[in-house]
Amino acid sequence: MLFGKGASEGIALGKVLIIKNDPLGIEKKRIEETEKEKNKFLEAVKISKDQLGKVRDKASKELGMDKAAIFEAHLMILEDPELMDGTINKIEAEKLNADYAFKQITDQFIEIFEAMENAYMRERAADIKDVSDRVLRNIRGEKIVDLSILEEDVILITNDLTPSDTATMDKEKVLGFLTNIGGNTSHTAIMARSLEIPAIVGLKDITERINSSDFIAFNGKTGEVVINPSHEEIEKYQSLKIAYEKERKALGHVKGKVSKTIDGREVELVGNIGTPKDLLGLKKNDAEGVGLYRTEFIYMNKETFPTEEEQFDAYKEVLESLNPKPVVIRTLDIGGDKKLPYLKIDEEMNPFLGYRAIRLCLNEKKIFETQLRALLRASVHGNLKIMFPMISSLEELLEVKQVLNEVKADLDKEGIAYADKIEVGMMIEVPSAAIISDILAKHVNFFSIGTNDLIQYTCAVDRMNEKIHHLYNPFHPGVLRLIKMVIDNGHKENIWVGMCGEMAGDPSMIPILLGMGLDEFSMSPSAILPARNLIRACKYEDMKKTAEAVLSMDTAEQIEDYMKNLEK
Amino acid sequence: MLFGKGASEGIALGKVLIIKNDPLGIEKKRIEETEKEKNKFLEAVKISKDQLGKVRDKASKELGMDKAAIFEAHLMILEDPELMDGTINKIEAEKLNADYAFKQITDQFIEIFEAMENAYMRERAADIKDVSDRVLRNIRGEKIVDLSILEEDVILITNDLTPSDTATMDKEKVLGFLTNIGGNTSHTAIMARSLEIPAIVGLKDITERINSSDFIAFNGKTGEVVINPSHEEIEKYQSLKIAYEKERKALGHVKGKVSKTIDGREVELVGNIGTPKDLLGLKKNDAEGVGLYRTEFIYMNKETFPTEEEQFDAYKEVLESLNPKPVVIRTLDIGGDKKLPYLKIDEEMNPFLGYRAIRLCLNEKKIFETQLRALLRASVHGNLKIMFPMISSLEELLEVKQVLNEVKADLDKEGIAYADKIEVGMMIEVPSAAIISDILAKHVNFFSIGTNDLIQYTCAVDRMNEKIHHLYNPFHPGVLRLIKMVIDNGHKENIWVGMCGEMAGDPSMIPILLGMGLDEFSMSPSAILPARNLIRACKYEDMKKTAEAVLSMDTAEQIEDYMKNLEK
Repeated sequence: MLFGKGASEGIALGKVLIIKNDPLGIEKKRIEETEKEKNKFLEAVKISKDQLGKVRDKASKELGMDKAAIFEAHLMILEDPELMDGTINKIEAEKLNADYAFKQITDQFIEIFEAMENAYMRERAADIKDVSDRVLRNIRGEKIVDLSILEEDVILITNDLTPSDTATMDKEKVLGFLTNIGGNTSHTAIMARSLEIPAIVGLKDITERINSSDFIAFNGKTGEVVINPSHEEIEKYQSLKIAYEKERKALGHVKGKVSKTIDGREVELVGNIGTPKDLLGLKKNDAEGVGLYRTEFIYMNKETFPTEEEQFDAYKEVLESLNPKPVVIRTLDIGGDKKLPYLKIDEEMNPFLGYRAIRLCLNEKKIFETQLRALLRASVHGNLKIMFPMISSLEELLEVKQVLNEVKADLDKEGIAYADKIEVGMMIEVPSAAIISDILAKHVNFFSIGTNDLIQYTCAVDRMNEKIHHLYNPFHPGVLRLIKMVIDNGHKENIWVGMCGEMAGDPSMIPILLGMGLDEFSMSPSAILPARNLIRACKYEDMKKTAEAVLSMDTAEQIEDYMKNLEK
Repeated sequence: MLFGKGASEGIALGKVLIIKNDPLGIEKKRIEETEKEKNKFLEAVKISKDQLGKVRDKASKELGMDKAAIFEAHLMILEDPELMDGTINKIEAEKLNADYAFKQITDQFIEIFEAMENAYMRERAADIKDVSDRVLRNIRGEKIVDLSILEEDVILITNDLTPSDTATMDKEKVLGFLTNIGGNTSHTAIMARSLEIPAIVGLKDITERINSSDFIAFNGKTGEVVINPSHEEIEKYQSLKIAYEKERKALGHVKGKVSKTIDGREVELVGNIGTPKDLLGLKKNDAEGVGLYRTEFIYMNKETFPTEEEQFDAYKEVLESLNPKPVVIRTLDIGGDKKLPYLKIDEEMNPFLGYRAIRLCLNEKKIFETQLRALLRASVHGNLKIMFPMISSLEELLEVKQVLNEVKADLDKEGIAYADKIEVGMMIEVPSAAIISDILAKHVNFFSIGTNDLIQYTCAVDRMNEKIHHLYNPFHPGVLRLIKMVIDNGHKENIWVGMCGEMAGDPSMIPILLGMGLDEFSMSPSAILPARNLIRACKYEDMKKTAEAVLSMDTAEQIEDYMKNLEK
């Protein structure tokens, strides 16, 4: 049995699919039988083409033409005579091994494309690299796993999942994720909860400890993994699975109910979403609106910036579908660990402390104005609230509001309608903003506390950094004090205060936040019904005392222990 | 006339020395006259050896054998038959141009050394790269500037100075620095102030705008640079220079005086130092002790960790020399942007939010224990105070104190003496520590606020990142509130509170800090006399009101304007 960090609740039993992607480490060899080597190369190209054709066909059926086009482009690369003939000539003339010769040729092309000014051409370098990797692995006879085509239901075992893995993945066939690295707020963990797929992260070397023929059972809540369970263990996990699904189903009884404590304190439970596709999850889980619509996804997987029209459509779809429920849309939060292929940002030593989100938008105003125009135009189709990320000072907030007013004035001139009273708010995720939240509260309609970043900056801990993960702790008394300060400062100016970090959906945190007076909790849609169930069982007056007790403690450990005892 | 950011006061007039180090960009060419190409290569090797011989001789005379050994090693690389014959054979056999052939050969070696487990061997890759660059530039007939041998007095013009530049530089011959990038707290700016060399940073493209034949005059306070000044301008700058030097000299009258306001509030003005060599600057500037002894330098420019004995000697030298003045020694703050060649730290995405300082010491206890033993043993030779960096929670502080007690117990067992009452303190540089400083104050004898990092984390701004430098602002009201909070919390527990970031020596900040009740100001030694002069002209009661006024303001701009008006 192995133990990791339970990242997404649920029980999974099934076969494994291990994705390793070890580095290739290609060596130069002298080959005498060049004819044989040439055929080896041509055979690998043929296999690669077959694979790509299948993926393309599946993608065009299930994921749309956009995604299929990527694989079509990969196929075209394999038709390029300079690549193909170049490799064959190299094998013959220099008596080189096929993999070394092909890599030499593709590396040259990659280098040329990478050096180009044009963002689109630079992005092509990545395509050639993908194709090159595929052919090289085929030359070596390695098995290549396309996550978009899975033959059977599997538990995915990998070092970590990248955003592009989860974008193309055949989600219906994935029973669970087990990863070597990652914590509760890593991409894999967040995606797993959002997709309602059980997951355990931080299992260290699970990709090495498991064989491709193993059968696995695991519990995404406790972090337990059993390799090749006995008959009894399988039965145990199966009944746990049934019980879990029953419990999830039982939560159905709080659907349609208000999120109100026994003694009448009502709060709002809303969802974090990334695309209009997430509307389904919101409805299924009876979300009371959207507390965070991350607009980055509209900008990703594209070759140029989305037009005003494309954005308008995406915003309108969500607003209309949820009307009159509130939808908080956050303006572009790119930079940091999120990059766009067509927007070159210089390499930064500390991207999390760098040029990102509102900092980028205020510097490249055209991008920002286009988004604001699309948002304002969409506002007539629902209950829009606009939210700005990464604000660290009053100066930035005032500048942002100035730009918004200019865009409104432009629309007025053009006679284009937008809603009368659009609430404007900001995220509190930079410590300096939390500390001066009394000042900032005078200039916005709401705050939403972004705890993932706030903890990261407050404790000076990159939450993706395994070595210091123990220092990233939402229960740190300094973090809790900042949150309380923000809520109090907001209430003094009569504005509402929400939270859209992972903390807002954590059952051991909800009683504290409730007691502190938080008005809105925004979380993965799947966490909404359990949260409502919990809140309806709480007394606000008691939770106030809990919050007070917790805020008087010295260490995260004391607070966590206190909350654990409270649950019992 | 150009404008940059004045980073180190003073006036400089002189010839320029431009250091560009453009990338080499070597192309493969087919050469028919291989004999000529071979000679070109051999000639470049000869020139390189001559250069290295001169640098080595100068280094051994002026910098000691340690530094000379580096260049001796470089010379030995140029004797290596595999490198030399390998290149010549390659030129002949493949009809290649000399630079491409030599780079192919050296790259192979660099790759091999870089892949080695042994840190010492990996470090050799950097040596080969240095030598390779030198030979390649000589093949192309580029002029190579060795900062350790300067023929005449010059103003250095460069993109930015690296720590290794300033370590080997012939400081006597450098009249000033002008750099393209950097802000007030960049390495160049800090070094310039510490060496008392005038400097302007952030001049954007000055390396491109200036010719090697230009004459320059500049003012390190205002940030003005005049290229090829007229006769009148030269006279103006010369009289400014005389006036500045007179003013510096006049500060002599506060030597030996206490740092006390008109109405009797006495504070401590101490220095930030890196090595025992800085003792001279402390004495010259009448420092009242050391507020920050950065022990990293003892660990740098070495091939293994310094022994307990080596450390003991370095600490003892400073303690003894200043006795009975206080010396605050900070334990190892490595990681982040500071690396050791013999300690491999995995690449981190955000090193400033990563595995560094106390985080590393608590994980690699042997390193930490050796340093603590050396510190405790040295404590009998002066007035030692031990300070821990980057503490973010009470848990870490308690663990650190536990280790210190264990080391003390070991020394007791061995019958080794250490001072009776050694004050133990911590830096406040992580926002979470500032926020819970009331809790932490119960467990230490002092706080020292490290503003460079505190601002960085509080405002989520990497201070080295040019693109967002405007957001790194010591006058941010959030930063000032945190500082006030830390001072108040320290005083409530009757401990003293100091500051060792760049802010502590800034004349426009000193009145605010004084008014907030800061007890100790630690700065570049050269800033001490001006600070004492300023403090002796202030009234504490007035500065309290200034601090109060400033703390009620909304933006950094308002606060800066207010302080500017106050100066007038």
